[in-house]
Amino acid sequence: MLSRPHHDGSALYVSTQAPTPGESVRVRVRVPHEADVREVHVRQVTDGEPEFRALHEISRSDSEAWWEGEVVCHNPVTSYRFILEGGPGGYQWLNGTGLHERDLPDAADFRLVTYQAPPEWSLDSVVYQVFPDRFARAAGRPPIADSAPDWALPADWDDAVSTEPDTVARQLYGGDLDGIGEHLDHLERLGVTTLYLTPFFPARSNHRYDAETFDAVDPVLGGGEAFRRLIAEAHRRGLTVLGDLTTNHTGDSHEWFVAAQADSQSPEHDFYLYDESGDYVSWYGVKSLPKLNHDSEGLRERMFDTPQAGVQKWLAGPDGLDGWRVDVANMTGRWQAQDVNHRVARHLRDVVVDTKPDALLVAEHCHDHSQDAMGDGWHGVMNYSGFTKPLWTWLRGKDFAPRFLGSPLRVPRLGGGAVAAMMNEFGAIVPWRSRMHSFTLVGSHDTTRVRTLVGDDAAQVVVAAGLLLTMPGIPMITYGDEIGMEGVWGEDGRRPMPWDESRWDADLFEAYQQLIRARRDLEPLRHGGLRWVHTSDNSLVYLRETEGETVMVHCARAADEVQVPATHLAGVESARVVVGNALQHNGSHVTMSAEGPAVSIWVWSHEG
Amino acid sequence: MLSRPHHDGSALYVSTQAPTPGESVRVRVRVPHEADVREVHVRQVTDGEPEFRALHEISRSDSEAWWEGEVVCHNPVTSYRFILEGGPGGYQWLNGTGLHERDLPDAADFRLVTYQAPPEWSLDSVVYQVFPDRFARAAGRPPIADSAPDWALPADWDDAVSTEPDTVARQLYGGDLDGIGEHLDHLERLGVTTLYLTPFFPARSNHRYDAETFDAVDPVLGGGEAFRRLIAEAHRRGLTVLGDLTTNHTGDSHEWFVAAQADSQSPEHDFYLYDESGDYVSWYGVKSLPKLNHDSEGLRERMFDTPQAGVQKWLAGPDGLDGWRVDVANMTGRWQAQDVNHRVARHLRDVVVDTKPDALLVAEHCHDHSQDAMGDGWHGVMNYSGFTKPLWTWLRGKDFAPRFLGSPLRVPRLGGGAVAAMMNEFGAIVPWRSRMHSFTLVGSHDTTRVRTLVGDDAAQVVVAAGLLLTMPGIPMITYGDEIGMEGVWGEDGRRPMPWDESRWDADLFEAYQQLIRARRDLEPLRHGGLRWVHTSDNSLVYLRETEGETVMVHCARAADEVQVPATHLAGVESARVVVGNALQHNGSHVTMSAEGPAVSIWVWSHEG
Repeated sequence: MLSRPHHDGSALYVSTQAPTPGESVRVRVRVPHEADVREVHVRQVTDGEPEFRALHEISRSDSEAWWEGEVVCHNPVTSYRFILEGGPGGYQWLNGTGLHERDLPDAADFRLVTYQAPPEWSLDSVVYQVFPDRFARAAGRPPIADSAPDWALPADWDDAVSTEPDTVARQLYGGDLDGIGEHLDHLERLGVTTLYLTPFFPARSNHRYDAETFDAVDPVLGGGEAFRRLIAEAHRRGLTVLGDLTTNHTGDSHEWFVAAQADSQSPEHDFYLYDESGDYVSWYGVKSLPKLNHDSEGLRERMFDTPQAGVQKWLAGPDGLDGWRVDVANMTGRWQAQDVNHRVARHLRDVVVDTKPDALLVAEHCHDHSQDAMGDGWHGVMNYSGFTKPLWTWLRGKDFAPRFLGSPLRVPRLGGGAVAAMMNEFGAIVPWRSRMHSFTLVGSHDTTRVRTLVGDDAAQVVVAAGLLLTMPGIPMITYGDEIGMEGVWGEDGRRPMPWDESRWDADLFEAYQQLIRARRDLEPLRHGGLRWVHTSDNSLVYLRETEGETVMVHCARAADEVQVPATHLAGVESARVVVGNALQHNGSHVTMSAEGPAVSIWVWSHEG
Repeated sequence: MLSRPHHDGSALYVSTQAPTPGESVRVRVRVPHEADVREVHVRQVTDGEPEFRALHEISRSDSEAWWEGEVVCHNPVTSYRFILEGGPGGYQWLNGTGLHERDLPDAADFRLVTYQAPPEWSLDSVVYQVFPDRFARAAGRPPIADSAPDWALPADWDDAVSTEPDTVARQLYGGDLDGIGEHLDHLERLGVTTLYLTPFFPARSNHRYDAETFDAVDPVLGGGEAFRRLIAEAHRRGLTVLGDLTTNHTGDSHEWFVAAQADSQSPEHDFYLYDESGDYVSWYGVKSLPKLNHDSEGLRERMFDTPQAGVQKWLAGPDGLDGWRVDVANMTGRWQAQDVNHRVARHLRDVVVDTKPDALLVAEHCHDHSQDAMGDGWHGVMNYSGFTKPLWTWLRGKDFAPRFLGSPLRVPRLGGGAVAAMMNEFGAIVPWRSRMHSFTLVGSHDTTRVRTLVGDDAAQVVVAAGLLLTMPGIPMITYGDEIGMEGVWGEDGRRPMPWDESRWDADLFEAYQQLIRARRDLEPLRHGGLRWVHTSDNSLVYLRETEGETVMVHCARAADEVQVPATHLAGVESARVVVGNALQHNGSHVTMSAEGPAVSIWVWSHEG
């Protein structure tokens, strides 16, 4: 696969990650000699019309040539692709999904965007998702049963999670923010850099996606003071913290909704949507989650525009959050003929960045996000479609086929070729920068736990973690994945974190530590481009590359041996093993082998 | 290929072509038994979130079952696709490009739109494009040399066209509207139904895309009176007429631009765009074509909103046009960070439909039009990307490889499989209704002539015309293609129409007549769905189907014999030859053959 011409959005191929309006950006294509390419042009779409520019060969080695040309960022989003003269049919397009010997639509074109760049720190982060009710309760605090709110069904930390419809959202274990603060050493030991908290607003459920207000932190969690303590301590340790904001809906006990229902002349009445019958619209018809009307000026002011607005209040200052994950971002501002989603996302981005210039904004999105992740609003999305689902499709257990986020069909089990194609296709629908600033995840509080997914096979979990920590994107780990926690679906997986380490899978924890360390040590894993070396049913082999350094990763879901030509692996003879097995060389070829499910990572320097 | 499950946007599969907001539309999937499908769900995206509904089997024959379910048109554009349990891998998506055994992005999803439907007459039309300066000069009128405007280089009708940069736009043959009126019998004899005139506004070029005003018809063409005479006569004969409107720019001699340049305080100054240096922006930097600023309220009023505005004036009343083709529609309203293209398109559509409810609005568009042809503005586009280019790729001469609309590479010559895939992919990026209301064309006044394209082989021109007149879309024929006119590129092809019939290719003309008649006689060719029967390097075989009738088409670019199973061709034994060769049956199979480049068309009734 390395014998094919290649381009991606990384620094090896694009002269800037943050082009400004009108900037002329240098773009490069790497052309292996065997591709037999005689001429290269770039086609960009400018003001809605294609235009072409020639590239010129700028360097040449024994194995390949580099061509360079220009893309002018005339529009905020500039899509481009290359046309190559030569190769098998004499005529080839190179776009985000590779080479094509015939015309095809623009959906997978490369893209440069001139919107303000996402914060630099975020690409270096590894995110740890915590569901506050289930992570830890502050030591010495009386049992939650003593102080549980009226809606709650208090539970002891060792109780089984309820998954019954009536009780699933009401079961309260009493995890709190001080509890999290007491366990930040766990995050540091694991090696993650960013704590992402699912909602902390007062609510009438354990998940708190039904906020009662955005003005306060739930007293059950310790309130605003505990929040400030936690953030301060996290920051002191060099950890960043993300909150979870619901822009699509509130709870039906939200102060705005209560006012809206009490008086149809109230300013808040306009904050919500109403159907033809006059009834309020709600998320998926769940009446406890009334849907917000983002055509309301009043809502915009109250939700976003004042320093007292939740968005700003919890972000501002040194003891504020470092960004937001946005719940149901994909549905926000969309109802019937109303679609102000991008206006809301852009406005929220402006408010967030004005409040804290280096804050990160990541959207929940569980399907094709091509229309929503161009980088005008959200910096990135939760990349369920382009990472999680492909990964599940490769690694789900032979006897355990989960449903994926509402699909009526069970996840298929496919080989590495199909899985890489899925990753490529979904990766190509958005600008490289959006892909890089999207969360990769093997699951979340809304899905099957990875341990259960793979059929309770720790070695397969390591393979999943290997992909997670070496592919483009910001890896997000759900609390407890690293110790082998299980769960058949979202709620079933929201089990309380066991702090008795004898209940942990210690080997798995160590594997996570090792993989996270590799990511933090190796710049190419955080910033490099992506080239596939080899895919087969049981193996995925790929390069992550920066100017001076190449990292090669081999993920195997079963015992496998892979042999590839060394032609395009300049410098591989000096490869160092970071994780896993040694590489075998025999002059012209490189051989990597796995005796079972395994991840190996090698690194070497190469000539620039 | 008929053994695969199928759905498209035609009436066989979708219960209405004009769904209203909120309407629940019945959708059907045809499932051949050998596809081994056990369950079918439809996935639609509602308010930005996928939802699934089960389909149910509603009928079953020896060879196939039909499944039916519902798509709710909750949003103006509702994308949907099917998920099938069963088949080779047990898991298959069915979208606009067919079956896929793994996840893929939504770009090729089917789509239903609730925007007001395009005019019914347009699907039954065959469009004939006339470049007024080159079609006919009214009999008995003195030579153009006697009355040529100052910018023009008058030419005699039999002079060769100039293709030199200095003179190409100035050479004036003096074709006029009365000349066209005198030759409407040619259109009737050919069988076309719609006359499309490239611009008739006063200008300083023979192409007139550099309008001096939208208020008048060029006196060189005979002025407003000749216009009314032509339309009245066309309408009397049952022909409809389309004009050509330039929304992206005007000429630099346009009255608005003259006023804008004379006085930067004039209302017209705001009608145009200016760059950082203060200089006006123009189409592709061609200074004679200043670009319009569609953020200007004043422009909107003057260009669209009054009965005197050109858009309305030439459309209104019984002797008005029946619609507009819009020049450079793809760039209109787009410049740097300004992108009001859809707002302009929607507004123009509203104005057009308010002026004449059954008017048609078709946009020039030469590349991926997925973002621009959802049906909110233009009813359709000139389908260069989804029809012309694939056709060229299949039929271009072995020794003649043209460049396509600005591409630096010559058009490749590929086999039928690749060409069908191109048509499928570009066909799938827009709603079925947009595809059906887009112009199919083998070329235009802006491209190589089809006769030249195929290497001066009349039989190949017939194959091109066969595809043109049997594929989904509104066929557009450029004047003279039907008699074998040649031209290496756009301007070279704008040769004066020879009215001495001894210079015509009479056989070709007859073939065009026959194919146009077939289209006008056979409803499936105008309204039916599209299913591929067979593709190979030299053959394309497909069905166009309505409830009671099936049309099968075989286009061969070289001698070929195609044998297909009869299993899924119920009723084929009663097939009638419409054009071309007989079908051979041998019980289980059907054989079609071509002794060289040829088109055959068969029709039969089938059980509903």
